[in-house]
Amino acid sequence: MFERSILKEIAKKEGVSFSYLESNFRKGRVVIPYSNKRKIKNPIAIGKGLKVKVNTNLGTSTERKEFKDELEKLVVAVKYGTDTVMDLSVGGNLRKIRKEIIKASPVPVGSVPIYEVASEVERRRGGLEKMTRDDIFSVLEEQAKDGIDFFTIHAGILRSFLDILQREKRTSGIVSRGGAILARWMYVNKRENPFYEEFDTVLDIAKKYRITISLGDALRPGAIADSTDKLQMYELFTLAELVKRCRRKNVQVMVEGPGHIRIDEIKFNMWIEKKLCDQAPFYVLGPLTTDIACGYDHIVSAIGGALAALWGADFLCVVTPAEHLRHPSIEDVKLGVIASKIAAHSVDLIRFKDEWERDKVLSLARAKRKWREVFKYALDREKAENYREQKKISLDDICTMCGKFCSLRLIDKCNLLK
Amino acid sequence: MFERSILKEIAKKEGVSFSYLESNFRKGRVVIPYSNKRKIKNPIAIGKGLKVKVNTNLGTSTERKEFKDELEKLVVAVKYGTDTVMDLSVGGNLRKIRKEIIKASPVPVGSVPIYEVASEVERRRGGLEKMTRDDIFSVLEEQAKDGIDFFTIHAGILRSFLDILQREKRTSGIVSRGGAILARWMYVNKRENPFYEEFDTVLDIAKKYRITISLGDALRPGAIADSTDKLQMYELFTLAELVKRCRRKNVQVMVEGPGHIRIDEIKFNMWIEKKLCDQAPFYVLGPLTTDIACGYDHIVSAIGGALAALWGADFLCVVTPAEHLRHPSIEDVKLGVIASKIAAHSVDLIRFKDEWERDKVLSLARAKRKWREVFKYALDREKAENYREQKKISLDDICTMCGKFCSLRLIDKCNLLK
Repeated sequence: MFERSILKEIAKKEGVSFSYLESNFRKGRVVIPYSNKRKIKNPIAIGKGLKVKVNTNLGTSTERKEFKDELEKLVVAVKYGTDTVMDLSVGGNLRKIRKEIIKASPVPVGSVPIYEVASEVERRRGGLEKMTRDDIFSVLEEQAKDGIDFFTIHAGILRSFLDILQREKRTSGIVSRGGAILARWMYVNKRENPFYEEFDTVLDIAKKYRITISLGDALRPGAIADSTDKLQMYELFTLAELVKRCRRKNVQVMVEGPGHIRIDEIKFNMWIEKKLCDQAPFYVLGPLTTDIACGYDHIVSAIGGALAALWGADFLCVVTPAEHLRHPSIEDVKLGVIASKIAAHSVDLIRFKDEWERDKVLSLARAKRKWREVFKYALDREKAENYREQKKISLDDICTMCGKFCSLRLIDKCNLLK
Repeated sequence: MFERSILKEIAKKEGVSFSYLESNFRKGRVVIPYSNKRKIKNPIAIGKGLKVKVNTNLGTSTERKEFKDELEKLVVAVKYGTDTVMDLSVGGNLRKIRKEIIKASPVPVGSVPIYEVASEVERRRGGLEKMTRDDIFSVLEEQAKDGIDFFTIHAGILRSFLDILQREKRTSGIVSRGGAILARWMYVNKRENPFYEEFDTVLDIAKKYRITISLGDALRPGAIADSTDKLQMYELFTLAELVKRCRRKNVQVMVEGPGHIRIDEIKFNMWIEKKLCDQAPFYVLGPLTTDIACGYDHIVSAIGGALAALWGADFLCVVTPAEHLRHPSIEDVKLGVIASKIAAHSVDLIRFKDEWERDKVLSLARAKRKWREVFKYALDREKAENYREQKKISLDDICTMCGKFCSLRLIDKCNLLK
């Protein structure tokens, strides 16, 4: 299914053996999003025993249609270490944007095809309720031909769950864009989720183009008050069933997860996904541990993401400070990527020698006040250098924080360092 | 020891019963930093079963002596919800700065008296090694008279620990400013830590002015590679012994904790402090889960602080993005306070009904796209409002992120919300 050379390259980067990677890939505990229409400069694998990966969302909105900014976001996200990107565009010439992003991206590219289906049907026929199965599968086929590496497919939200939601209500309803599109379609047309009904057609396309399926969590909680509720669990049971169907057809699959989750429920959420979905890689959107930090959700997501990664999440979706408020700027994307990388690295350093060494080398340089060496190993070198403001300091080996009372300088002669 | 009215006021704010508060206060599991020389506008308690508290460090450095900025930092820190502040000044007229901060502060004020001792001896006699016991205790007495509510006292770093450190080395040596001052003094004078030797004198002053002792962790790890090492543990055992001595004299005491700690060792660190120190309130400086995020340590600290709070930490010290790099700006302090409040609130919301309700009300408003209501409950209203950019949006109930494909708008007619 894959060239041996790709697996070899990935195993080397991860610091795991070829046979470990291959065996977990075979079992579906590791996925490698890599379309057979693509040549990816930095291929990656996601899953068990590997480093925690980070995805950055790009894409125009109906209010922000210029795609040049999206290409710049791609550059910034890659610079700060994103492992994949997703094109979530819903405004402008969608095919053109997708092709540009795929062409420019050195990392795997994902999409949520239902966005394009809904956008096109809305534009052409004036209402997304008018989507047909042919609309859906022709977009999937076209995106696949263009070289998308992984598809988010919201096949787990069923009509019966909507009935429950209408009866029992929720604080935040449905906060997944793809989930809401399908929910509205089901509500108006009184029909079952087409992705669920025709999941085999999805699998045929995925198989043909070697696309990894990312099972979307349309019913993820969008508020702490909805954390780990019945609807979230019902959908997860459905996703677990779909994981089996993917594996039976030899289609790579991962599972998407919450969302807004209480800090004391994150561990359970990681465990239950791994158990129900037989260790399928878990791709989490946060989780966010509070709803009130508008403008700082990248920090909230760093908290939730670090805990999730510690307890089993394999793949973190970047949340920017603009989340819930606006279409993110380039700077928002940068801040979001860095926050997610901090979360991922906080866990990777306890598991991988090379990651551990990076902190150690930086700290030893810091203790010796070798500033250039510190900057070299910092996550964001420019920021660290700008903060230092060297010119304004009276002694070149200290910083303005403690000045002459720098603890490290005070004990310099005591010979305490490794 | 305390006016009943203060305990009543605090119990009400915390949403706990008067008897719960009083009983835990008596047992030393809760402290109320409140000097008998002060009238505090917003008194608070720290400890078991109470909301997680946040402290913000203020103070000049030898390179930044202007104290007007420090007073502005106080205003900003209080605005964003700090529960206490500490004056850590080492530059300029220290007594004047302290008095100004105490006068202006509506919250308890702490200090690290050894900073002033070292600064003054350095200035007058050209070397902090020349400190005498009288220098130390006259500063303690003066600061107490000025109305400081809590003192950080680094009485747990002993000469024998320095011998171990010299023999076994560390990646980051000693990163506590107070700890390094005392270590240097002990190293040069070949004498025991004066705070340890004369701990009873410290207790006499604390008792006279009703000052809470915060036992400093001079040997906290300053690098992940030193996380939970022997020296950190040795000091903690000494602090546990000192907790007993404080309680025997009816002096309120809390314990300071790390520092740079591996994410998978935070839980143990919280447990061992609570066990050894018989549930004395735990005041943590971070913990930081990675060393490489220079310029973003407020985010790292939010991760570590949230975990620490979840597992028992009572009091979080703000870490700003300037940590390890420079004396923080007013904006740095704001970002640091908000990051710590996010960590504290992420845990408080699972324990306190009023905190839980805040997220719920905000999320329900968000689901109904009542933006003004969302902003009202946000941690930083101005930031949220600025991000929204309302004027640039075609429909006033959505944001630029999803535009017309706002999930909440799509399912508006489905009647799914609580």
